[in-house]
Amino acid sequence: MDFKVKVVNFEHPKRIAILNKNDAINIGVGTEQRITVGHNSINITAFAYLSDIVGNGEIWINQRLSNDSGIEIGENVSVFSAPQPQSIEYIKKKMYGNKLTKEEIDAIVNDIVMENLNDIELSGYVSSIQTIGLDNEEITNMVNAMVNTGETIKFDHDVYDVHSIGGIPGNKYALLTVPIVASSGLKIPKTSSRAISSPAGTADVMEVLARVDLKANEIKRIVEEVGGTLTWGGAMNLAPADDKIIRIEHPLGIDPFPQVIASVLAKKKATGINYLLIDIPMGSETKVQDEEMARDLAGRFIEIGNRLKIHVECAITYGGQPLGRAVGPALEAMEAMKALEGTPTSNSMIVKAIELASMIIEMGGVAEFNRGKDLARHILTSGKAREKFLEIINAQGSKGIEKSDEIPLGEYQHDLTSTMDGYISYISNRSIVLLARSLGAPQDKGAGIWVYKKIGDKVERNETVLKLYAEKKDKLENTVRLSRKLRIFDVEGMVLESIGKKTKKVIRDES
Amino acid sequence: MDFKVKVVNFEHPKRIAILNKNDAINIGVGTEQRITVGHNSINITAFAYLSDIVGNGEIWINQRLSNDSGIEIGENVSVFSAPQPQSIEYIKKKMYGNKLTKEEIDAIVNDIVMENLNDIELSGYVSSIQTIGLDNEEITNMVNAMVNTGETIKFDHDVYDVHSIGGIPGNKYALLTVPIVASSGLKIPKTSSRAISSPAGTADVMEVLARVDLKANEIKRIVEEVGGTLTWGGAMNLAPADDKIIRIEHPLGIDPFPQVIASVLAKKKATGINYLLIDIPMGSETKVQDEEMARDLAGRFIEIGNRLKIHVECAITYGGQPLGRAVGPALEAMEAMKALEGTPTSNSMIVKAIELASMIIEMGGVAEFNRGKDLARHILTSGKAREKFLEIINAQGSKGIEKSDEIPLGEYQHDLTSTMDGYISYISNRSIVLLARSLGAPQDKGAGIWVYKKIGDKVERNETVLKLYAEKKDKLENTVRLSRKLRIFDVEGMVLESIGKKTKKVIRDES
Repeated sequence: MDFKVKVVNFEHPKRIAILNKNDAINIGVGTEQRITVGHNSINITAFAYLSDIVGNGEIWINQRLSNDSGIEIGENVSVFSAPQPQSIEYIKKKMYGNKLTKEEIDAIVNDIVMENLNDIELSGYVSSIQTIGLDNEEITNMVNAMVNTGETIKFDHDVYDVHSIGGIPGNKYALLTVPIVASSGLKIPKTSSRAISSPAGTADVMEVLARVDLKANEIKRIVEEVGGTLTWGGAMNLAPADDKIIRIEHPLGIDPFPQVIASVLAKKKATGINYLLIDIPMGSETKVQDEEMARDLAGRFIEIGNRLKIHVECAITYGGQPLGRAVGPALEAMEAMKALEGTPTSNSMIVKAIELASMIIEMGGVAEFNRGKDLARHILTSGKAREKFLEIINAQGSKGIEKSDEIPLGEYQHDLTSTMDGYISYISNRSIVLLARSLGAPQDKGAGIWVYKKIGDKVERNETVLKLYAEKKDKLENTVRLSRKLRIFDVEGMVLESIGKKTKKVIRDES
Repeated sequence: MDFKVKVVNFEHPKRIAILNKNDAINIGVGTEQRITVGHNSINITAFAYLSDIVGNGEIWINQRLSNDSGIEIGENVSVFSAPQPQSIEYIKKKMYGNKLTKEEIDAIVNDIVMENLNDIELSGYVSSIQTIGLDNEEITNMVNAMVNTGETIKFDHDVYDVHSIGGIPGNKYALLTVPIVASSGLKIPKTSSRAISSPAGTADVMEVLARVDLKANEIKRIVEEVGGTLTWGGAMNLAPADDKIIRIEHPLGIDPFPQVIASVLAKKKATGINYLLIDIPMGSETKVQDEEMARDLAGRFIEIGNRLKIHVECAITYGGQPLGRAVGPALEAMEAMKALEGTPTSNSMIVKAIELASMIIEMGGVAEFNRGKDLARHILTSGKAREKFLEIINAQGSKGIEKSDEIPLGEYQHDLTSTMDGYISYISNRSIVLLARSLGAPQDKGAGIWVYKKIGDKVERNETVLKLYAEKKDKLENTVRLSRKLRIFDVEGMVLESIGKKTKKVIRDES
C-alpha cells in the first residue's frame, strides 16, 4: 500500500513511522511492529505506531527515518510488514547457553547497526552477554564485526594508545600521558568517550581546552604534525554498534565484561592502533573489585588483542578513591595543566600518568625496560610535555586557555567539612560520582568537586574535606541536600586504643 | 511545571505523554524517560516522547494514560522526571546470578503491573529468568506476588482444573474433559488463554460455540448451576503481570520454565483452584523434548503447588504430532462435538480426554484408583457429557450452534497430497502451526487444517494428507505457496528391505 509522507520532529531512539489505525490494520501491521518502508530502490526497516492524529493514506515519519533513508515530505512510499530478522534466533541461541559462530555474530552486529532490532530484542542480547557471556573467539568475531560495520582509520606506521576501562572518578591522567608519549617520538592518536555514567570522560575534560569533535582526516594530519591527539571517538563513525549497545546497557546499569572488551578493542582497531595499554583501575567501588578479576580481564584483553594483531599490555591501578583531587571537566583540566606547568599538585595523578607513559615508551622501544619512567618524568618536569600539550590543543583548535588559572570554574560553591578530628579512612567513589553529576557535570563544565582530603590525610573538626562547584544555584542546593543522605567519607578518631570506639587501620596512599 | 492535556489515540504498549522539546528540556526529561504525571491526588508513571507537533505548555497523553489515571482533555497536570524504580536493582541482582527475596520479587511484580518499567528493563528481567532461572521458593514468591496484584475468585468448596502447558497443535481435549468432570459432580471452572503463538487456544475454540469473556461473578454462578465453565481467563484481571511478561517473551520467542510454572499456578491460584492436573505434552517439537525434562518440570509443579496449597498432579502426554485431526478454532470445535455426539472420530483426542478426566475424577474421590477411566468413558459414551457441554454453552451464552455439522468452516480449501505410496513417518507440529496461522487462525475461526493421515497411516500416491481451510482466498493462496517451502510430513516407502533406499521404522500411535 502507498502512503504520502510527512516528516515530523518526533524524538525516538529508532526510525519510526506513524500510520492511521485503519491503514495499519489493512496492511496487517500492529503497534511497534517492524515495517519495511520502500521508496524508489530504497527499502528501510522502521517501527510502526498507530494513531488517529494521522490521516488515511498518510504516513508520518520521524527525522531519523528521513535522514537514514533520504525520504522527504510529500513523497510517496510503500509500506509492508517486515519479516523478523534472523539474528533474533541467534540471540535466543546465546540465551540457551550456546556458542555463536562468526556468521551469527556478524548477523547480530549488522542488525544492531542497521537498527533492525527493537528494545526487547536488544536487551535480550545484552542481558545474555551479561549472564551467559562470550568466549575469546566470540569476542574476537564481535570486534571484527563491529569494526567492519563502521569507519576505520589507517596509518602507515605504528600507532600507540592508552585506554582506561573506567570506574574511578577524576581519571584525567591521559592529559599528561598523551603529551609525554608524543614528546618521546611515538604516535598516539588517543580517542576517548564522553561520560556515560561518570562526571567526566577524557573527551569532556579535553573539551574545556580544545575542540574534540575531530574527523578521521584531521586526526591523521595532526598526528603526523604533532604526534598525538586527544579527541572524542564519537565524532567519527567508529564501531557504531557500540553506542547502540551502550544505550541498552545504561538503563539496566550493567556493563558486561565481554562487551567492555569488545567495545574497547573495536574502537581501537577501527582507529588503527597496534600497540595498546589498558588501564584497569581496581577497587571495591570500581568495575573491577579484586586482583583475580583484574588479572582475568587483563589476560582476556591480551589474548584477544593477539588474535586481532594488537599488542596489548595491561596496568592494574589503584582505584580505591578518586585519582588526584579534581572531579568534573574544568577542575580536572585545571589539575592536569597544573601538573604540566610544574605547579605542585596531586601526586597520585602524576605518578599514574608517568607509570602509564613509561609502559608505552618501553613498548615502543624509545627507552629500555625499566628506563621509561626516568624518561617520562624528565619529559614532564622539563616542560616539554606542557609544550607538546599546547601544540596538541592548538592543532585541534584551542578555546584560548593557555594556563591552568585561566580555566573558569563553577561560581556557586559549598564546602563539606569534617565533624571531628581524625584521619580520612574512606572516600566513596560512588558518592563522589553522584554528587558531581548532581552538580551538573559533565554538561556544566565548571561543575565538580575538589577533594581536599584523601584517604590517610589528617583532618580537623570543621575543616573542608570536599568543595562542591556548580554553575547553577539550584543544582548546588539540590546537591547539598543530596549530600546529607549519602555516605561520602569516613573520619576515624586518632586515639586508636580508646575503649568502646570503633577504629580502623588508617591506609595511606600517595594522594 | 504545569501542562494542558490533550488526549490522543496513540497506540502504544505503555502509558505515554508527548511534550514539546523545549518544555522537556526545561524539566530535564529526555526521550522515553520515565515521568510522573500529577493531577489532584493522582501521581502516575508514564514515558515521555518529545516532538514539535505538540505546542509549548501542552501535553498529549495516550488513551491508556488517560484511562489509567482518569486525566482528561483540557485538564492541567504537573510533570516531573520520575526516579528510577528500585526493582531495576533487583533485576540486575538476578542477572548477576543471585537469589531474590520475597520483598524483591514483590517489588519487581508490582513495577511490572504498574507499568513502571521500560522494554529494556522488562526484557532484562525475562532474559535473566531464561538464562539464570528461579528456584522453587522464588517461583512460589512470584506466584503470590502475581496473585496479590490482581483479581481473585473465592469458592467455598473444592474446585478442580486441568491445564496444558501447550506446544501441541489441535489440543482441544478440554472440551471433552471439562463436561465429563462436571458430570461426575466435581466443580471445574476452567479458564484458558487465547492463542499466543499457536493456531487456537482453548478459549478460541470454545468461542466458536459460546461467549467466553465471562467475569468472576458469572463464572461463580455458572459453576454452581452446571458444575463447569470453559472461559477466557483474560476477561478478568487475574495475575495481570502475566500478560505483560508474555508481551516481552513473544518477540524473543522464549518461554522460560520458571515463568511458565509461575504463570500457570498464579492464574489457577487466582481462580481459587485447589486441585490441579497439569498436562505436559512431550515431543521433539513441543516445549518439552524428553522425559527427563518432563519429569523435572512435573516435579517442580508438584513441589511449588504444595507450597501454594494446591494439590497438583501431572500427566506426561504424547506430543509427537497434532492431537486428533483438527487444527484451528472451528475445526477443533467440530471434532470435539463429534466425539461428544458419539460420531466416530479421532481416537487420540478421546483417549487423552478420558485419561485426563479420569485423573481428576480420582483426585476428587468420585472414583477409586484405576476406576476413573471406566466412569469417564461411560459419561462420554452415554451422552451425558454432551448434555453437560450444551448446558455449559447455554449458561455461558450460546452462539446458536447445537450440532457439530452446524459449525461453519472456511470456504476456501486446498488439499496437500502424498507424492508416493507408503506410510506417514513424520508430521511436523511446527509446520502445522505455521500453516494454520498463515491460513488465518485463530482470528479467522474457520481457518485451519484437517489432518487426514497421521503417523503410521498408510497413504497412496495423490491421496490427501492434509486439507487446508481459509476464510480468505489470498490467505489460502499465500499458505499454499508457503507449504512448498516447509517440511510438513514424511512418507516412507513400504518395501522395508529394498537396497539403497532410505527406510525408517514406522511408528504407530492411536490417531
